Amino acid sequence: MAQKPSIPKGTRDFGPAETAARNYIFDTIRSVFRTYGYSQIETPAMENLSTLLGKYGEEGDKLLFRILNSGDAFANVDNTRPLTPQVCEKGLRYDLTVPFARFVVQHQNDICFPFRRYQIQPVWRADRPQKGRYREFYQCDADVIGSTSQLNELELVQIVDTVFRKFGVRVCIKINNRKVLTGLAEICGFPDKVVDITVAIDKIDKIGMEAVEEEMISKGLTPEAVKIIEPVLTLKGSAAEKIAAMRPIMGSSETGMKGLDELEELFGFIEAAGIVNEVEIDLSLARGLNYYTGAIFEVKALDFQIGSICGGGRYDNLTGIFGLPGMSGVGISFGADRIYDVLSGLGKFPAEVKSSTKILFANMGEAAYLIPVISALRSRGLACELYTDKTKLKKQFDYAERKGIPFISINGSDEVAQGIVNIKNLESGEQKSFAKDDADGILAFVS
Amino acid sequence: MAQKPSIPKGTRDFGPAETAARNYIFDTIRSVFRTYGYSQIETPAMENLSTLLGKYGEEGDKLLFRILNSGDAFANVDNTRPLTPQVCEKGLRYDLTVPFARFVVQHQNDICFPFRRYQIQPVWRADRPQKGRYREFYQCDADVIGSTSQLNELELVQIVDTVFRKFGVRVCIKINNRKVLTGLAEICGFPDKVVDITVAIDKIDKIGMEAVEEEMISKGLTPEAVKIIEPVLTLKGSAAEKIAAMRPIMGSSETGMKGLDELEELFGFIEAAGIVNEVEIDLSLARGLNYYTGAIFEVKALDFQIGSICGGGRYDNLTGIFGLPGMSGVGISFGADRIYDVLSGLGKFPAEVKSSTKILFANMGEAAYLIPVISALRSRGLACELYTDKTKLKKQFDYAERKGIPFISINGSDEVAQGIVNIKNLESGEQKSFAKDDADGILAFVS
Repeated sequence: MAQKPSIPKGTRDFGPAETAARNYIFDTIRSVFRTYGYSQIETPAMENLSTLLGKYGEEGDKLLFRILNSGDAFANVDNTRPLTPQVCEKGLRYDLTVPFARFVVQHQNDICFPFRRYQIQPVWRADRPQKGRYREFYQCDADVIGSTSQLNELELVQIVDTVFRKFGVRVCIKINNRKVLTGLAEICGFPDKVVDITVAIDKIDKIGMEAVEEEMISKGLTPEAVKIIEPVLTLKGSAAEKIAAMRPIMGSSETGMKGLDELEELFGFIEAAGIVNEVEIDLSLARGLNYYTGAIFEVKALDFQIGSICGGGRYDNLTGIFGLPGMSGVGISFGADRIYDVLSGLGKFPAEVKSSTKILFANMGEAAYLIPVISALRSRGLACELYTDKTKLKKQFDYAERKGIPFISINGSDEVAQGIVNIKNLESGEQKSFAKDDADGILAFVS
Repeated sequence: MAQKPSIPKGTRDFGPAETAARNYIFDTIRSVFRTYGYSQIETPAMENLSTLLGKYGEEGDKLLFRILNSGDAFANVDNTRPLTPQVCEKGLRYDLTVPFARFVVQHQNDICFPFRRYQIQPVWRADRPQKGRYREFYQCDADVIGSTSQLNELELVQIVDTVFRKFGVRVCIKINNRKVLTGLAEICGFPDKVVDITVAIDKIDKIGMEAVEEEMISKGLTPEAVKIIEPVLTLKGSAAEKIAAMRPIMGSSETGMKGLDELEELFGFIEAAGIVNEVEIDLSLARGLNYYTGAIFEVKALDFQIGSICGGGRYDNLTGIFGLPGMSGVGISFGADRIYDVLSGLGKFPAEVKSSTKILFANMGEAAYLIPVISALRSRGLACELYTDKTKLKKQFDYAERKGIPFISINGSDEVAQGIVNIKNLESGEQKSFAKDDADGILAFVS
């Protein structure tokens, strides 16, 4: 009975301070999505396993949380066959992308395309829990589906730029294009070595040109192939300069040229939009190489050491798996847990996030006198608390201090007789008296 | 491959319009909670089954969704014993109250009491799906724990009153007290018949006094016992009058008198607070009779036929099941699905809920010209969309219409040459031109 209760490993409780901070993150992102016309949707936590299985690779299938069928799940099982598929038909959402694809196909007749949707919901993965990796965590995704225009990529870059400006966090937005990587692999004659080439490019700053070339050869490229790619590895300068330098090399690959065209168009828009944060071409971005077909995004914080805090890209056949081909989409996903760590590490959470209650009205037994005063303040949007128990003032002060409430109001029979209310700033010590119906005066004093 | 995808029975997708409407409900409730100093918390979707089992009765245990252990759940099972407990250690949250009790006990050293918390999260129940009953639905609970003052009950009544005033929905807030019901059962000599007596009281308006008395006798009460309760069944008048009429009858029950004291104190506060909606004593409220120990609340919409849309009460030993005795709490729960039906049935959703995008900028191939114009509007909080594909104007108009976007902006090379932007009100037909950097002018025109 009295065993200390606990929660499943890899899951978390969020107390008041953490929830307020997380809400600040989600509300900020949501407010930016909204100004771009993205609409929120929500899908069920449970999906049919037929929807989820086979979408995340063999490893992903193992990480799905399965729900035992309700009723007597084992009533008619055949013990000679594997039991899991016989007793589980549903699983918990593993990401937001597959449910989104399922949603689009299922509701295609009700959807107005191009469809801009965002979704902020938890996902569940039976990963081995470790520092910074959880079995339940929120994803925060924005995708647009049904348009191939690079203006969509631009909007996602603008969204990222605006969100992090609102957070007061300087970031670098790195952009790659899968078609350019495909082109590089094509022009050197190893179209199946896209990943190896990308990984090698990623190492150039750490291990130097010679070691990178050796690595590519160890992966099966010929010295001649490496020679062709070499100029790309050391590209410097602006996006326009990098694109210009790649064009002559890429000449023979149609896909590669298409990729350069896309990058050029996107960076043209980016210049027109006046993005404040750094935006650069980074050919080493290998994120999601298995499914992205065009742009690839990744966002890094400049002043805080942590992995990427946002990422995404374009996928040309998102809904094909559910029978709706030819739908191109592009999207980004904000990493709420890491953004939390960045804001917290840089001290960027606004003060209001810590405590929303502005005034604690102490209880000296005059509650009925104070109730209308407090109501008037609340109706003006001010968060106030009345200490509900008539108890020692020391205890009530402690409560205000622990909750970080900045003002206290202490009123006894004298104040009631005079028809006034005292408000004290707990930090500065300044105290003022107000007529009991002067809600506007009190509001001004504490704002 | 191309099977039409679906979701598990009893679950729902929420598209843009529904999600926006639901957010309006949650945001409104949340904004009121906040002004009363309630803090939000979140708990994991999965709880250990040891936390959940035995808390909802035998029926409830059957309705828990259980999660198959990850890894090879069946590797070491003993086939001679029931399999379910061997292969499932976790279950999905069934309500928010048990996780809240678990949270309070687990984090008691970090919590500042009295602890006012709210929680808005989905819960899952393997109920048979039917109209209006789902296997996944949101609960929206506010509770305060660690204070026995009736001021807490008052605050919950104020919260309910404020929330439904914000919704523009007239409600009746019905209040009962478990101690009064206990008292009635005691004074007539049948302390174990609380439920039967309450159910009988509930029927008085429908079947009349005689039938109610017969029913009580059929449940085992004596005619003498019924005679004692009779005056209570026909109580009329204000709360104060009802309480006054009950006092002489209740004299011999200490618990009953305590209940009347609580009601009297609460209604005194309610009068001081100037509650706008109807508030009345309703002795027939039997909701949660198994666990409530003091106040019982229920809220009914006055202008729409539907079950209760909000309810709650006080429970004196919420955390005792987890080893922390002596913690009294009182709380309410808003029924988001029913409130949705009421607002929708009465047409009370604000127009802004339907579409947040104010202006669609058509794409005539002049995107780079429009991007800074649109950015300036978005930075002022206005939701705008640029149609990302350069396509037939008809298609772009259709898009604006389907999404309910009220303004369209169509600009070709002439407008670019003149440095202007046209904005047209799609409803009135009124059109105006603005200098391309006159974001404030455009904002005023569309607001």
